[in-house]
Amino acid sequence: MRKLVSLFFIVLCVTAFAQERPNMVPEMTEIWDPEVSVVDPGETPMDAPSDAIVLLGADKAFDNEWTNGNGGEPGWNFDNGVATVKSGTGTIKTKREFKDFQLHVEWRSPEEVVGESQGRGNSGIFLQGIYEVQVLDNYNNRTYRNGQAGSVYKQHAPLVNACKAPGVWQTYDIIYTAPRFKADGTYFTHPRVTVIHNGVLVQNNVEVRGPTEYIGIPEYSVKPHGDGPLILQDHGNPVSFRNIWIREL
Amino acid sequence: MRKLVSLFFIVLCVTAFAQERPNMVPEMTEIWDPEVSVVDPGETPMDAPSDAIVLLGADKAFDNEWTNGNGGEPGWNFDNGVATVKSGTGTIKTKREFKDFQLHVEWRSPEEVVGESQGRGNSGIFLQGIYEVQVLDNYNNRTYRNGQAGSVYKQHAPLVNACKAPGVWQTYDIIYTAPRFKADGTYFTHPRVTVIHNGVLVQNNVEVRGPTEYIGIPEYSVKPHGDGPLILQDHGNPVSFRNIWIREL
Amino acid sequence: MRKLVSLFFIVLCVTAFAQERPNMVPEMTEIWDPEVSVVDPGETPMDAPSDAIVLLGADKAFDNEWTNGNGGEPGWNFDNGVATVKSGTGTIKTKREFKDFQLHVEWRSPEEVVGESQGRGNSGIFLQGIYEVQVLDNYNNRTYRNGQAGSVYKQHAPLVNACKAPGVWQTYDIIYTAPRFKADGTYFTHPRVTVIHNGVLVQNNVEVRGPTEYIGIPEYSVKPHGDGPLILQDHGNPVSFRNIWIREL
Amino acid sequence: MRKLVSLFFIVLCVTAFAQERPNMVPEMTEIWDPEVSVVDPGETPMDAPSDAIVLLGADKAFDNEWTNGNGGEPGWNFDNGVATVKSGTGTIKTKREFKDFQLHVEWRSPEEVVGESQGRGNSGIFLQGIYEVQVLDNYNNRTYRNGQAGSVYKQHAPLVNACKAPGVWQTYDIIYTAPRFKADGTYFTHPRVTVIHNGVLVQNNVEVRGPTEYIGIPEYSVKPHGDGPLILQDHGNPVSFRNIWIREL
Repeated sequence: MRKLVSLFFIVLCVTAFAQERPNMVPEMTEIWDPEVSVVDPGETPMDAPSDAIVLLGADKAFDNEWTNGNGGEPGWNFDNGVATVKSGTGTIKTKREFKDFQLHVEWRSPEEVVGESQGRGNSGIFLQGIYEVQVLDNYNNRTYRNGQAGSVYKQHAPLVNACKAPGVWQTYDIIYTAPRFKADGTYFTHPRVTVIHNGVLVQNNVEVRGPTEYIGIPEYSVKPHGDGPLILQDHGNPVSFRNIWIREL
Repeated sequence: MRKLVSLFFIVLCVTAFAQERPNMVPEMTEIWDPEVSVVDPGETPMDAPSDAIVLLGADKAFDNEWTNGNGGEPGWNFDNGVATVKSGTGTIKTKREFKDFQLHVEWRSPEEVVGESQGRGNSGIFLQGIYEVQVLDNYNNRTYRNGQAGSVYKQHAPLVNACKAPGVWQTYDIIYTAPRFKADGTYFTHPRVTVIHNGVLVQNNVEVRGPTEYIGIPEYSVKPHGDGPLILQDHGNPVSFRNIWIREL
Repeated sequence: MRKLVSLFFIVLCVTAFAQERPNMVPEMTEIWDPEVSVVDPGETPMDAPSDAIVLLGADKAFDNEWTNGNGGEPGWNFDNGVATVKSGTGTIKTKREFKDFQLHVEWRSPEEVVGESQGRGNSGIFLQGIYEVQVLDNYNNRTYRNGQAGSVYKQHAPLVNACKAPGVWQTYDIIYTAPRFKADGTYFTHPRVTVIHNGVLVQNNVEVRGPTEYIGIPEYSVKPHGDGPLILQDHGNPVSFRNIWIREL
Repeated sequence: MRKLVSLFFIVLCVTAFAQERPNMVPEMTEIWDPEVSVVDPGETPMDAPSDAIVLLGADKAFDNEWTNGNGGEPGWNFDNGVATVKSGTGTIKTKREFKDFQLHVEWRSPEEVVGESQGRGNSGIFLQGIYEVQVLDNYNNRTYRNGQAGSVYKQHAPLVNACKAPGVWQTYDIIYTAPRFKADGTYFTHPRVTVIHNGVLVQNNVEVRGPTEYIGIPEYSVKPHGDGPLILQDHGNPVSFRNIWIREL
């Protein structure tokens, strides 16, 4: 219940110069409506809030929310809420498509260390299907800076390397703003992304220059698009994922 | 160890039209140096990473990092890492000053519910000493939307109300970019702030219009400033704080 | 005709460290398509280019492009391409509506000086019908800074006062980017405006906070809208306009 | 003289709901101080305003404001305010250095058409010495779109091709905002540039990605810098310049 107030006050403006602005009162800068919607947060910041769509969880069938790249059954291993890349089965993709969102993902690189640089614990999260936040085991594993865990792949190196050891679950909290397009098909506003890796800020609302390109310049392949799915990459390494939830903004 | 490669390849550009761009190779968009610094993340995203300054913690004396508003001893109660507003003793303020940062704060409104609207569990976190992120018990407590918990006070209502019940610890994860100024003392870039409340995004890199004003228009009181402290507000309610850490960006 | 090139070259990458990027060649960063459209510029920068819509010109009937505020005949005086406010007849408004644009306007305050502050040679150009660039005779006429000629009225004072004397024709060159909206009706991006007054920059891509308000705070009255007309204000003073052209961007 | 007002009014707020904001009055959003500085504009928008520095004009010695690339005498031809590239003598450079500015330049490609694509009437204006706005005779002369007249060379094609014929004087009006840097030497804000070519907008506050590179990717060569000179390019063609003025912002 809000307070009923009986305001009866006098604003006295001295009869001096017009440029002395009359005093305001606190209520002039209070906005009451519309009421802000209530969201029930998770117990910890890692748990899904009440308005989140749980995309990967222990109590969900894998193929409820995911397909393989061609719309068929996802080929990855799935056990008790944990999905693990099965090399050669290709990407998995959400059935739903998204525009702007907050996304929570937990991932784990294989405990047994195999390979180096981009060959170790490599996967990726493609926002709207085309903008990749890199997943990689960079724990004591050097690679090019703009291809590290937490990078916007080949566009923005992470601010720091906040990787945990192989075999340990890690978190990404991602805030994504989709691009808007001009009539001529170029960006009116670029995509923007913030990434927090294991609680550490690694991307601060950076501007994505264009679709992720392994070869070439992202600006050159910009094409207008609407909402898009999340895609998780099969890069040949048995990287695992769990507890993925998303809130549309 | 990075891979040594023996690249010896030929880029064949057909003798056709100049506008067919020659092919690039993947290595042309790989940046290796400087190496990204390693940060040891906390065990959970709420725990301080290795490069954080712990401002409030169980193993720190209160007056190591904090003073009252006048530079003297902070007047609040402090017990085992928890600082609680002691009404009438005024704000507390960090000795250190900051520019751009990532900040983690945990706060708790009093379990016993007293008052309503702005009178219930009210405190605040002033970034650089002048830009307030509101702390308020908004659990079943309506107030003006731009004065709620998670608001940039009187400037930006939170996207949602993610409050937990009185007496329960809550988290703010804040990413703050300080303003830069023109020679004439106006903003070259405004302050920007992202706030995640209990794991839920409530401010998405919003532009702060000016210093927080209880009365009046923030734009009108912009003045150039350098780094500034964190200030926690005494608004008369025994709100508690714990586990405050900050990472300079 | 473009050059045909016979590129046949070898990129030699030393067998040393992978982080030495292979050399690129100039053609890799040349984009040929689509060809840029040709526009025939005016003889001077004040003359309408070939792709401009002429809204007010000597060879156009006044009511071709303009109505009064209610869609009827415009009530102003019109003679040989010059439209002059006829006090009491109200605003005039374009029949066309616009989104993003470049706009050229010439205006003249009455040679005979009458009134002071906001009372002298006052009119205005409302972009999309709601965002006003102020027209005022500020030649030796002080008023509040955020209400001067070249101001975004009550939001942004001009960088300088570049007024010519009463009775002399003046120019505004305006670059306007319309706002985009979120699903909830708030701005996704604010309107932005650049104003060049008599060849002098007075607004540099400033962010418009909301619709122009004579009383109150612009942020509080933001409502989603599509394209909108240009509106010229009748503020009671016989201000004249001529040579208005616009290019949709 | 400003109006003296005797405001004595009562704001009556009905005793109903607190969310009805009390009415404001117009004077609450009027800002009088500091007074906006007066600038005397040129007779036409092409003429230098009173606060401009004239860098190239009929009444100035050439070497007052310009040197060659090494700080010596500029090697170009100079006659009655017109400077013309003398092939092989290299660039010319202002003695002064600038941060943010408004710049007016007039240029003319040789009347006799020689060469094609980038070989015809090629020169360039380097803002802060490193960010090039291309000068080229693109009148019936196709080249790569991101290398045309009015392009930010190899970064942003012009919105349209507004070239005049060879031998005819053309204008560039440029608004430039210098980058600001972070402590780590990367951009805090990128350079931004607006270009109006012969009165036609060709660049609308675009973000410059990095220093102009004939070969390679601009982002990769960003280095922190302070103010910088204007540089005009000797690209082997006898392009002429006149009436260059600049206003520091």
